[in-house]
Amino acid sequence: MSPTVDYERFDKVRALDFDGAVLHVLDQRLLPHQQTWIACSSSAEVGEAIANLSVRGAPAIGIAASFGVLFAAIEAQQAPVDEQQSRFDGLCARLRAARPTAVNLMWAVDRMRALATRDPARLEQEARAIQAQDLAWNRQMGLHGAALIAAGSGVLTHCNTGSLATAGFGTALGVIRTAFAQGKLNAIFMSETRPWLQGSRLTAWELLQDQIPAKLIADGAGAYLMQQGLVQWLIVGADRICANGDVANKIGTCQHAAAAKIFGAKVMVVAPSSTVDLQTATGADIHIEERDSTELLSCTGTRIAATGVTAFNPVFDITPAHLIDAIVTERGVIHAPNVQRMRVLAS
Amino acid sequence: MSPTVDYERFDKVRALDFDGAVLHVLDQRLLPHQQTWIACSSSAEVGEAIANLSVRGAPAIGIAASFGVLFAAIEAQQAPVDEQQSRFDGLCARLRAARPTAVNLMWAVDRMRALATRDPARLEQEARAIQAQDLAWNRQMGLHGAALIAAGSGVLTHCNTGSLATAGFGTALGVIRTAFAQGKLNAIFMSETRPWLQGSRLTAWELLQDQIPAKLIADGAGAYLMQQGLVQWLIVGADRICANGDVANKIGTCQHAAAAKIFGAKVMVVAPSSTVDLQTATGADIHIEERDSTELLSCTGTRIAATGVTAFNPVFDITPAHLIDAIVTERGVIHAPNVQRMRVLAS
Repeated sequence: MSPTVDYERFDKVRALDFDGAVLHVLDQRLLPHQQTWIACSSSAEVGEAIANLSVRGAPAIGIAASFGVLFAAIEAQQAPVDEQQSRFDGLCARLRAARPTAVNLMWAVDRMRALATRDPARLEQEARAIQAQDLAWNRQMGLHGAALIAAGSGVLTHCNTGSLATAGFGTALGVIRTAFAQGKLNAIFMSETRPWLQGSRLTAWELLQDQIPAKLIADGAGAYLMQQGLVQWLIVGADRICANGDVANKIGTCQHAAAAKIFGAKVMVVAPSSTVDLQTATGADIHIEERDSTELLSCTGTRIAATGVTAFNPVFDITPAHLIDAIVTERGVIHAPNVQRMRVLAS
Repeated sequence: MSPTVDYERFDKVRALDFDGAVLHVLDQRLLPHQQTWIACSSSAEVGEAIANLSVRGAPAIGIAASFGVLFAAIEAQQAPVDEQQSRFDGLCARLRAARPTAVNLMWAVDRMRALATRDPARLEQEARAIQAQDLAWNRQMGLHGAALIAAGSGVLTHCNTGSLATAGFGTALGVIRTAFAQGKLNAIFMSETRPWLQGSRLTAWELLQDQIPAKLIADGAGAYLMQQGLVQWLIVGADRICANGDVANKIGTCQHAAAAKIFGAKVMVVAPSSTVDLQTATGADIHIEERDSTELLSCTGTRIAATGVTAFNPVFDITPAHLIDAIVTERGVIHAPNVQRMRVLAS
C-alpha cells in the first residue's frame, strides 16, 4: 500500500482567495520574481484578470469566473428591475468570452447562471463550493493517476497544472506530487513552455517550494529524454477534452505526445470532469486561441527578433486521442480513450 | 524547368571573413540587435570564438577551425624546431575539442593537418578552398533538396542553417531559399530554438534581409502546424550524420521529426558530405554536448526561473534514421537512409 500523501506539504501556494467581498488574484504574470495580488471586486475586473493571464489554468479560470458571476449578480441589481436580467446575462456573456479555449470557464459560468435563476442567495456559497470541489477532485485525480505509474519512473510535464492553475494541489502536477510522495519517481522534468514560460516561471517555482527535485528542459528536449529512457510518462492537463478523447491543451503538448508515441513513453491527461465537453465531437471543432505575436518576438519584455519579423502564436494545440494512454478525472481512469469509452462521463 | 536562383539576392550575410591576416568573426551572440565583428589572429582566439558560440553552425565551425589551423601552423614555427610538431599538434587538438558534437570541426582540422605535413605553404589556400567549397556545395544542396518539394508546400525549419551557419546561402535554409526562389513555397515557418534562440535571432534576421516572408513559431508548435496541414516538409541541418543515417542536430529536431512522422509531414536533413561520419555507427555513439543550465534558466540575460531551480540542457539530440525521409548532401539525395544506402558516401 502506498504511503499517505502529506497534503499540507504540497499546499503552500494559492492562486485565488475570496475574502467575502473581494477576489484576490495572485498576478501570475509577475511570478516568480514578484508576488503581487490583484483585488477584483467586479465582474469586469475578474474578466480582465482572466483575459490578461493574471489568472490562468483551466480550473482556476473556472473558479475565478464563478466569483465573477457572483459580482455580476450584485451589479445587475443596480439596474432598473426590468433590465436586471439582461444586464446579468450581458455580464455573464462577457466573462464567458474572456478566453475561448478552456471549457471550464463556460462550465462554471453556466453552473452559476443556472443557480442565479433558481436560488440567487446561494451564489457565494456555490462559488466557494466550486473552489472546494476542485481541490478535492485534484486529490482524487492525484491518487487515480499515481496508481498508473510504476516505481522508478521518470515523468515530464508541460505548462503549469499545479496549485496556481487550480484551487490547489493541481491536476497533472497533483499526480506528480502524489507519485513523488509515494516514492515512485526517479526524475521529474518540466518543459519551459514558451512563449509564456509557465513551466520555468510557475511549475518550477511551485515544485521548489514543495522541495520536490525537478529539472527544467527546453520545449524541444522532450523527445530526447524519452529516447534516452529518462521519461516513462508525459503527464499533462487539459483545457478541453472532446467526446472522442481529443484533448486541447497548451501548445507543445501534442508535440511531446507525438514524441512519446514514437519513443515508447506513455501519455496521461489529467483534468476534472468539468473539462470534458461531450458537446464537442472532436478536436477539429475547438477554437484554438491565437495570442499576440509579441509574446514570441520577445521574452520577459526584451525583444528577441529583429524589427519586421512576424510570428504565428497559437497557444493551444490538439492532441488526438490515439496518442493518449489514459485520461484521468476525479471519477477514475479512461484507458485508450475513444468515443465509446468517453461515454462513462456522460452521466 | 525551375527558374534560375538569383544567388546575389540570397547572399547578403557572412559569418566569417579572412582578410589575409585576421579572421573576422561576426559575433552571433549579439545578433540581431548588434553587428559586431571579433578579430581572431591566433588559434586560441578561433577556438574561443567557437567555444563561446560567437561562430556556430557545423559548416561555419569547420571553416573557422581551418583558419585556426593556419594560425596554429604559424604559432608553432615560433617554438624551437624540435618542439614545433608537438606544439602544432597540441594547438590543433585544442581547436578540435572546442565543441564536441559537430563533426565538421574534426573533419576540417584533420584535413588541414594532413596538408600541413605535406605542403604547409598551401595552408591559407586550403582554408580558403574549404570556405569556397562550402558555398558551392550549399548551392548544389539547395537544388537537390528543392527538387523534392512539391509546389504549394509549407516548410518548417529549426535552428539556423543559413549563411550564418556556413560559408553562405546555407544548408537547410539554402534548400528553403532555392524552393522559395522557384516559387514553390506557400509558407515558411521557423521555430525559435530555445535556449539559444537561433531561430528567432538568426534565421528570422537572415530571411528578413532576403525579404523572404516567414513566420516564427514556438518550439512546441511544430506538431500543431503539421496536424493543420500547414507544413509538408521539416527541413533541418545536421551536426553529425552516422553510418546508419541517424542524425545529431540541434535539440528540438528529433521532436519535430517525431511529430512529422505522426502527422504525415516529411523530414529532410541537409548537410555537406563533411558532416557525414561513417566511423560513427549510430546516434548512440555520439557525444551530446550539455551546456550551462543558465541558458535555460534565463533568456536574453534576464533570469526567468526562481533562484534554486535547476535545469538539464542538452543542446543536441539524435533523430533516428527511421524518422528521416531524405538526406541531402552536395552529391545528391539519399532517400529513407539506412546503413546500406549511406554507403554511397563512403567513396
